[in-house]
Amino acid sequence: MILVTGGIKSGKSTVALNKALKYQTRAFLATGVPFDEEMKERIRRHQEERRNLFDTYEEPVEVSRVLRTIDGRYDVVVFECLTTYLGNLYYYEVNVQEHLGKFIETLASMRTEVIIVTNEVGWGIIPENKLAREFAETLGKTNAKLAKLASEVYLVVAGIEIRIK
Amino acid sequence: MILVTGGIKSGKSTVALNKALKYQTRAFLATGVPFDEEMKERIRRHQEERRNLFDTYEEPVEVSRVLRTIDGRYDVVVFECLTTYLGNLYYYEVNVQEHLGKFIETLASMRTEVIIVTNEVGWGIIPENKLAREFAETLGKTNAKLAKLASEVYLVVAGIEIRIK
Amino acid sequence: MILVTGGIKSGKSTVALNKALKYQTRAFLATGVPFDEEMKERIRRHQEERRNLFDTYEEPVEVSRVLRTIDGRYDVVVFECLTTYLGNLYYYEVNVQEHLGKFIETLASMRTEVIIVTNEVGWGIIPENKLAREFAETLGKTNAKLAKLASEVYLVVAGIEIRIK
Repeated sequence: MILVTGGIKSGKSTVALNKALKYQTRAFLATGVPFDEEMKERIRRHQEERRNLFDTYEEPVEVSRVLRTIDGRYDVVVFECLTTYLGNLYYYEVNVQEHLGKFIETLASMRTEVIIVTNEVGWGIIPENKLAREFAETLGKTNAKLAKLASEVYLVVAGIEIRIK
Repeated sequence: MILVTGGIKSGKSTVALNKALKYQTRAFLATGVPFDEEMKERIRRHQEERRNLFDTYEEPVEVSRVLRTIDGRYDVVVFECLTTYLGNLYYYEVNVQEHLGKFIETLASMRTEVIIVTNEVGWGIIPENKLAREFAETLGKTNAKLAKLASEVYLVVAGIEIRIK
Repeated sequence: MILVTGGIKSGKSTVALNKALKYQTRAFLATGVPFDEEMKERIRRHQEERRNLFDTYEEPVEVSRVLRTIDGRYDVVVFECLTTYLGNLYYYEVNVQEHLGKFIETLASMRTEVIIVTNEVGWGIIPENKLAREFAETLGKTNAKLAKLASEVYLVVAGIEIRIK
């Protein structure tokens, strides 16, 4: 598993997609569900970027099931992204820890290489909002768990990938 | 072109100024316009720091014009900073993309070395405020474009410069 | 002195504690005072993590006095953390600059190795709240001063320590 992390618009997705292009058969698991026009437009642009280089799967919550279903059928799957997935878990009010546990377990057992895009969200003033704080902490801890599991970890700054593991 | 990025009070400016001191003739292009007392005080302190080591130019919006005017007349110009400049583009309600496009075009053609100070602003929880979000995204994308153009890119953490390109 | 910095839940504490375990006799200076249940629970979990591997001292404000008292009696002391300590200085409305000055002076003179945990809090949109902005700036500047004094500086990202000095 490969983990690609960084700030907003740091170029993480481009780095992840470029890494995936080195594999022969490619899937893309999009966790983003368009809540508004801004997001619909964003998703449309991302789809265009990928053109027909990837088979696209869309799933906001049951990502472990999708990963297990497509495991072995592709050389690589790009998972975009952990931050949106975690947001979905809170939004749909499912058991966050249980879903994350299953997700990590699934990743640990996969034959298909997975490239996970995630975010650094804890480098600012601690949010006053309790939910935002919990979100930042949960994402931080999950990033650390995935980084432990990963064979390669990249931090992307201003479009430049820095290999940190 | 040299890009120096980092968080608030990470020591970016000091790193940029020290790099500029290695050149013989130096200009400083300040984009900050003092809106209040806090900012006036900040600008005054910055000016003291530079003393008479730099010729100072001040321009909040038409920075491309200033850069073209002084091009070739100095060995180096420190541009401080992209974050404030972008804030000015929004504040004065000019066409942001057009100005940024011209800015990048100007940078690509300059003979005088330019050292650009910018900020990492997208490493926190995604702002709820739409303008703040758009600002963070635009700055992130512009940083990546400039980093592509730059011969050297530095990330400054706790006063320590990390060369990432 | 060793400085360990990073975002929320990046794994900074674990990195600091692991570094401390290489020393024979160990102290832990906790600056966190539980204001609410969430924080009490957090402190309790941290104490469990350290078990009986560290002598624990707790002091929200007069940390310099504690450090001078225990200096020479341990091989290492983990200071957790600068961010909370700075928050305490603001909360108790003492003279922030005076306390920080004494703190840095104390650190510079210690025989016991000190491992300081701190935070990166200035990598987001500049906070509109003046106090939050001042806090981020003061912490940023203090981090840079400590990094200058330190023999080793680590940036922790997703649980991975990156030595930057």
